[in-house]
Amino acid sequence: ATDLMTVLFFGKFLRYDADRPDRPENDRLIFSKGHAAPLLYALFAAAGKISETELMTLRKNDSRLEGHPSMAFPHTEAATGSLGQGLSIGVGMALNAKFIDRLPYHTFVLLGDSEMAEGSVWEAIQIAAHYKLDNLVGILDVNRLGQRGQTMYGHDIKAYVKRIAAFGWHTIAIDGHSYPKIVDAYKKALRVKDKPVMIIGKTMKGAGIPYFSNKDNWHGKPLSLKELETVLKEFGPVDKSVRANIALPKSVKRRPAPARPPVDAYTYDKPTATRKAYGMSLTRIFPKYPDLVVLDAETSNSTYAEIFANKYPDRFFEMYIAEQNMAGVALGLARRGKIPFVSTFAAFLARAYDQIRMSQYSRANVKFVGSHAGVSIGEDGPSQMGLEEIAMFRAIHGSVVLYPSDAWSADKLVEEAARHRGIVYLRMTRKETPLIYSQKDDFPIGGSKVLRESTEDVATVVAAGVTVHEAIAAYEELKKEAIRIRVIDLYSVKPVDAATLKRAAAETKYIITVEDHYPEGGLGEAVRSAFDSTAASILSLAVRKLPKSAKPDELLDYEDINRRAIIQSVRRLVNSARSSKVSASLL
Amino acid sequence: ATDLMTVLFFGKFLRYDADRPDRPENDRLIFSKGHAAPLLYALFAAAGKISETELMTLRKNDSRLEGHPSMAFPHTEAATGSLGQGLSIGVGMALNAKFIDRLPYHTFVLLGDSEMAEGSVWEAIQIAAHYKLDNLVGILDVNRLGQRGQTMYGHDIKAYVKRIAAFGWHTIAIDGHSYPKIVDAYKKALRVKDKPVMIIGKTMKGAGIPYFSNKDNWHGKPLSLKELETVLKEFGPVDKSVRANIALPKSVKRRPAPARPPVDAYTYDKPTATRKAYGMSLTRIFPKYPDLVVLDAETSNSTYAEIFANKYPDRFFEMYIAEQNMAGVALGLARRGKIPFVSTFAAFLARAYDQIRMSQYSRANVKFVGSHAGVSIGEDGPSQMGLEEIAMFRAIHGSVVLYPSDAWSADKLVEEAARHRGIVYLRMTRKETPLIYSQKDDFPIGGSKVLRESTEDVATVVAAGVTVHEAIAAYEELKKEAIRIRVIDLYSVKPVDAATLKRAAAETKYIITVEDHYPEGGLGEAVRSAFDSTAASILSLAVRKLPKSAKPDELLDYEDINRRAIIQSVRRLVNSARSSKVSASLL
Repeated sequence: ATDLMTVLFFGKFLRYDADRPDRPENDRLIFSKGHAAPLLYALFAAAGKISETELMTLRKNDSRLEGHPSMAFPHTEAATGSLGQGLSIGVGMALNAKFIDRLPYHTFVLLGDSEMAEGSVWEAIQIAAHYKLDNLVGILDVNRLGQRGQTMYGHDIKAYVKRIAAFGWHTIAIDGHSYPKIVDAYKKALRVKDKPVMIIGKTMKGAGIPYFSNKDNWHGKPLSLKELETVLKEFGPVDKSVRANIALPKSVKRRPAPARPPVDAYTYDKPTATRKAYGMSLTRIFPKYPDLVVLDAETSNSTYAEIFANKYPDRFFEMYIAEQNMAGVALGLARRGKIPFVSTFAAFLARAYDQIRMSQYSRANVKFVGSHAGVSIGEDGPSQMGLEEIAMFRAIHGSVVLYPSDAWSADKLVEEAARHRGIVYLRMTRKETPLIYSQKDDFPIGGSKVLRESTEDVATVVAAGVTVHEAIAAYEELKKEAIRIRVIDLYSVKPVDAATLKRAAAETKYIITVEDHYPEGGLGEAVRSAFDSTAASILSLAVRKLPKSAKPDELLDYEDINRRAIIQSVRRLVNSARSSKVSASLL
Repeated sequence: ATDLMTVLFFGKFLRYDADRPDRPENDRLIFSKGHAAPLLYALFAAAGKISETELMTLRKNDSRLEGHPSMAFPHTEAATGSLGQGLSIGVGMALNAKFIDRLPYHTFVLLGDSEMAEGSVWEAIQIAAHYKLDNLVGILDVNRLGQRGQTMYGHDIKAYVKRIAAFGWHTIAIDGHSYPKIVDAYKKALRVKDKPVMIIGKTMKGAGIPYFSNKDNWHGKPLSLKELETVLKEFGPVDKSVRANIALPKSVKRRPAPARPPVDAYTYDKPTATRKAYGMSLTRIFPKYPDLVVLDAETSNSTYAEIFANKYPDRFFEMYIAEQNMAGVALGLARRGKIPFVSTFAAFLARAYDQIRMSQYSRANVKFVGSHAGVSIGEDGPSQMGLEEIAMFRAIHGSVVLYPSDAWSADKLVEEAARHRGIVYLRMTRKETPLIYSQKDDFPIGGSKVLRESTEDVATVVAAGVTVHEAIAAYEELKKEAIRIRVIDLYSVKPVDAATLKRAAAETKYIITVEDHYPEGGLGEAVRSAFDSTAASILSLAVRKLPKSAKPDELLDYEDINRRAIIQSVRRLVNSARSSKVSASLL
């Protein structure tokens, strides 16, 4: 890839102000084949932006030059290293240039041939053609060799040309080591209209060094000192003083963003699905958060992203049923200063988990919104039920996980998500839920709401989303029997309100968690982890039987996460406490 | 899709013994567009295998006829409903027929046009062509309309033909409502050699009923009673008594499986990476588990699946860097009685999480093996570190999560995984770890090993994998200060050995968990959840800072999950206990 990138950097094709990486006019370059990180660093060394001494800190503790491009290096556009993700990020940046910021920058993505096997690349390819992203240039380095041998197509350049062209791209196949051909390819690529361009370079891994050129078993392998001698001899003399400049971009006057008048006030006065409040809230907050962009995977009539799409079509992008690419595009938009909200069924966000995982290493400011969470969706059955995504999103470093229980809390939490910088997951419910809160209530991240409380509480029920309503119903029922319980709405599953939980544990003896999610990694375990090295008695109700198709209420009952199950658990704990008190007094 | 499927079922193309769904010679049919489940049920009703009464239980509690095809229905090959997964499952079944069982059955997959946007479909398409699966027939129902409007290509049949043909398939484009054309297409499809075939049918959603034919906004929407009247009128009279037969398959004499002589005994006598023991163990157990099949995503030289691949090339399938398809293929193989082991870097299994999620609903017998777990991989940096996958796999219903700490435990746990029926995740470490166990030790699923124990233990350290070695080192150090700790190797993270943990909590006051994984959903929370409604004081050490490139030991130290951190935690707990005892005695 060295030749392909050297011409890009120093042939005045890339226009990038290396002293101001955030300059909006800069071209963008993503190393989708992140394992080529040493080349990225070497290019910036050749541009005089890294010293030779720093170059030698590669992969060492506290070096900016990590094993794969990371945000520690100021010229990294997005952390890569999980293959097949860079093109989606590039699509996000190109969409931003063409449709949002209306800037003339180009986005270049260096791809490896091995990663072309990833379906996510083809998702990006199809959507780039769909949106006619003529400001996006892929550079495919076909060096034939993957980590453990030959790729599926080896050096069959035509196989790539045929497939990529079939998806509507302009393709330019070249000898990836011929400087005149590479120069010519970039010239052509920057002139193509209405289509993204893929430059397909036939290359030799380790080109120029017969000792390992085009040979297997050299992927990520260091040379012995003896081998190094041979290789340096084959390579010939090196002039380490060579430096060259990266061309600067032209300054562009930004058009002011169109004014967005505030939307008409709305109010909730009857049971409303939180997913619907999501769509409403997006339209409400957009004038306050003009960087908002909304993406959806062909489910906007279910997630209610369509409410936003209908009002602000210029800021809604249909991503079709391709969740991996959607997450990558969102990251690309976020890296260009946007606040992307990404919605689909909660269950289908699992499709993008590797992209979500990687985005935590890119300081991503992306909001994921999963509708149709839990068994409470009912008849559609388990394939459509999000039952693992709290675990999935909690395990992301520094993430926020929010789970509203009514329209007002959903409305406010969408705004909290927009205001917060970082990865946020919002869990939405399909069915309508009664109103608990009013417009006046606030829902800070990391907080909770104590909905029922007395000095006689025997247990605390910690719930979120649909189970809040079950907990309130259980409270009413138990009150008739003179059993008082505390009810906490843990709308912020991460970070968790440890202080309120600890107070509840100290005051009410038992904690019962109840959630419409599998037990592992969910609300129950979030509550347990709030008690670091202090003891608490916690009983967790969660989805423990394989779900099926049935009515929402039948399923909440079947899984023992409804009012009936809460009431039984409270009674059981109270009775066992009484009987152990009795046996203690008998001793 | 009704016309396309009716001809398949009753035109003597599908050969399927509906009274014996498990018959090896049966053709296989997967509804990748799982939302067409009512059609699947209706076809079996027409074949006389479901009564009209049962058909009316669709989506009701305890019906076999769920909202999307589930295993409750005996003719479901694999649970579907998350789009874009069926073709991979079909590839697994076709691979089985062609290369393993050598049976003449065909695998048919009904695909929707919306799901063609999923990259996983293209992963399946490329691999099917690579393995020349001429026993695989896709039927693509291009009805133009997705859930919320037109698909990316609408009724542009040529767009599909061009793309699918470019990937090396034989394509047959037809009017999907013309019976003679459909008959002709199946005839042709079954004669094609060396290529998979895609029949691309141009269809109208709601064909034959002008009220909603080819009209938007009818996806998954029930009719009002008044609309139903109109529609039934348009449809005309229905003869509910019509029944037809599905053709039976021909009986085939199975070839006996080739004899696999036991491999030479091997032994471990020096530090060995658990990932290497994985490859060794696979070769050892294959003669005992002749249904074993191994898949890897172009990482077999890192996961050491290559040890198996080199010895038994006929049972190893290179899946290239396409993890989603790999998981789907594994499910297809498992549904045909095989025991697939699927390996790649632990981090990259996140790529297949939706496929893994769905496979829990197909009673999958698949073993996922993630190498390079945790920060202990070192210099390659966070993109390559599996730090979320314990959470990911624990949240799968009925799953088993195993995490060996040395070569012998790895060796045995691979066999436990093979013996167990269900989804198992095995977490492997990149670096070499010293031997703790011997060949004589057993590691039953759900067990643990108490490695250090005395009556004076002040705390219990619960570790797994690399942290077991840190815990042992901490034990040795603290022993010099006359502080005794208990050390438990929790090699079975799920199910968890609650009895041993409860005994430890009762006997040692404090529990310290230490894991090379993010805190959420990992070992620490697994331990916490073992204490349902009983109190225990648990302190959790886990990866809490954003990781980076550095040496493995530097990273274990940086994240406070090494011997130093364990020792400090024990001292702190002991001292705080002492000082609270002192203050109590002063009162």
